[in-house]
Amino acid sequence: MKILLIGATGTLGSEVATALEKSGHEIVRASRRGPVRVDMDDHASIDALFETVHDLDAVVCCAASGSLTRLDSDDDITAGLQGKLLGQIHLLRRAMRHLRDGGSVTLTGGVFDRLIPGASFTAVVNTGLEAFVEAAAIEMPRDLRVNIVSPGWVAETLASMGPEVRKSLDLEGTRGTLAADVARAYVEAVEGGAQGQAFRP
Amino acid sequence: MKILLIGATGTLGSEVATALEKSGHEIVRASRRGPVRVDMDDHASIDALFETVHDLDAVVCCAASGSLTRLDSDDDITAGLQGKLLGQIHLLRRAMRHLRDGGSVTLTGGVFDRLIPGASFTAVVNTGLEAFVEAAAIEMPRDLRVNIVSPGWVAETLASMGPEVRKSLDLEGTRGTLAADVARAYVEAVEGGAQGQAFRP
Ligand SMILES: NC(=O)c1ccc[n+]([C@@H]2O[C@H](COP(=O)([O-])OP(=O)(O)OC[C@H]3O[C@@H](n4cnc5c(N)ncnc54)[C@H](OP(=O)(O)O)[C@@H]3O)[C@@H](O)[C@H]2O)c1
Ligand SMILES: NC(=O)c1ccc[n+]([C@@H]2O[C@H](COP(=O)([O-])OP(=O)(O)OC[C@H]3O[C@@H](n4cnc5c(N)ncnc54)[C@H](OP(=O)(O)O)[C@@H]3O)[C@@H](O)[C@H]2O)c1
Repeated sequence: MKILLIGATGTLGSEVATALEKSGHEIVRASRRGPVRVDMDDHASIDALFETVHDLDAVVCCAASGSLTRLDSDDDITAGLQGKLLGQIHLLRRAMRHLRDGGSVTLTGGVFDRLIPGASFTAVVNTGLEAFVEAAAIEMPRDLRVNIVSPGWVAETLASMGPEVRKSLDLEGTRGTLAADVARAYVEAVEGGAQGQAFRP
Repeated sequence: MKILLIGATGTLGSEVATALEKSGHEIVRASRRGPVRVDMDDHASIDALFETVHDLDAVVCCAASGSLTRLDSDDDITAGLQGKLLGQIHLLRRAMRHLRDGGSVTLTGGVFDRLIPGASFTAVVNTGLEAFVEAAAIEMPRDLRVNIVSPGWVAETLASMGPEVRKSLDLEGTRGTLAADVARAYVEAVEGGAQGQAFRP
């Protein structure tokens, strides 16, 4: 298959690229930098991407994220709204027009194993995306499929935080899942028959 | 208690006002029209509301809604984002600063008993709000509480649609719940001890 992978240089995306290539697929790697560019915050750049990359069987998005913001702060709470939530929704709407028959879209959400302060808008984005994918599935034309992978903490991400940050987030006892193991869920979403499903590797 | 009720002239809000008044509370009725004004689409108007209405024990919001939009259309899909989702989130953040100790905020979501085409963004808003309330609860200061009422179809709303619209939405077999019955969930959320809970009347 010819697969567009957005966020291919990231912690998860680079392992997803490796896993999909091992499985024999051709990967078009996109992000805000490099030869094939897209900014998930900018709907017009998503539109433009589909004008330049053709004949796709699948789109996988491991790009754009949120951040933790306390409700009692004066800070903007909506990190992740534009790119991760609305960007991935727009990506599906455009992919619906451009993918080959029977193709698939795999988005990325996330889950926290327990509630942590500052995560209320992240919860909106991640839970909202799962509900979106479930509801969107019934509107897919031409045997297209849509699914979402909702990882917990990724081990490499926890490691890169360092002990101070892990302690501040009360994550000292959390091991996380290796990105390569999370990547298998993306391969299954692309190659299998799942529709409207949330994978929680 | 002194309770601010936003959307007090609506199908649900008017029954919620009646039920809360029967229970002996003082209600400040707000919406985009009338003596106490607020527009849930406009965060500044929410800020302004709390500068004029003081000494509140509870805030209840039954205002602002979404609409059905098919994914394959060219229409904006984000109805409900600004007012219902971001507006109610902003309302909680402001209420956290202005409510009396031990006060409560009750928001409104919604549930569909089965998936219907065009409802994917409504699912984001409603499911996102439930996840938000659950996560926000752990950040409440001063014994404040936050909950959400997620009604299914309201009987009066179904009746006002008329048979054509009900048929087009495949709702001919759906009875709905009387607004007065839904209103009891709001009274329970305000008067009881629930925290971070989704009521599904
Ligand atoms: N890592 C975790 O522990 C974890 C856990 C749960 C969920 N997730 C979710 O998994 C996804 C990927 O996470 P990650 O840890 O792999 O992130 P990451 O290491 O920061 O990588 C992000 C990737 O996306 C690209 N990117 C970032 N913003 C973009 C934008 N606006 N438009 C296009 N490309 C963009 C980056 O490349 P450029 O900088 O070149 O654009 C990079 O390739 C996110 O949605 C994240 O919330 C991660
Ligand atoms: N009815 C149902 O079947 C049903 C089912 C599930 C969920 N819900 C949810 O329940 C809530 C209330 O629904 P409803 O049927 O009672 O609605 P409704 O009859 O249309 O009433 C809406 C009320 O909110 C006010 N309002 C609307 N937009 C507003 C805004 N931007 N800012 C401030 N006030 C605003 C209106 O007054 P003004 O016009 O004066 O502003 C009115 O008082 C909505 O969130 C809806 O999605 C309803």
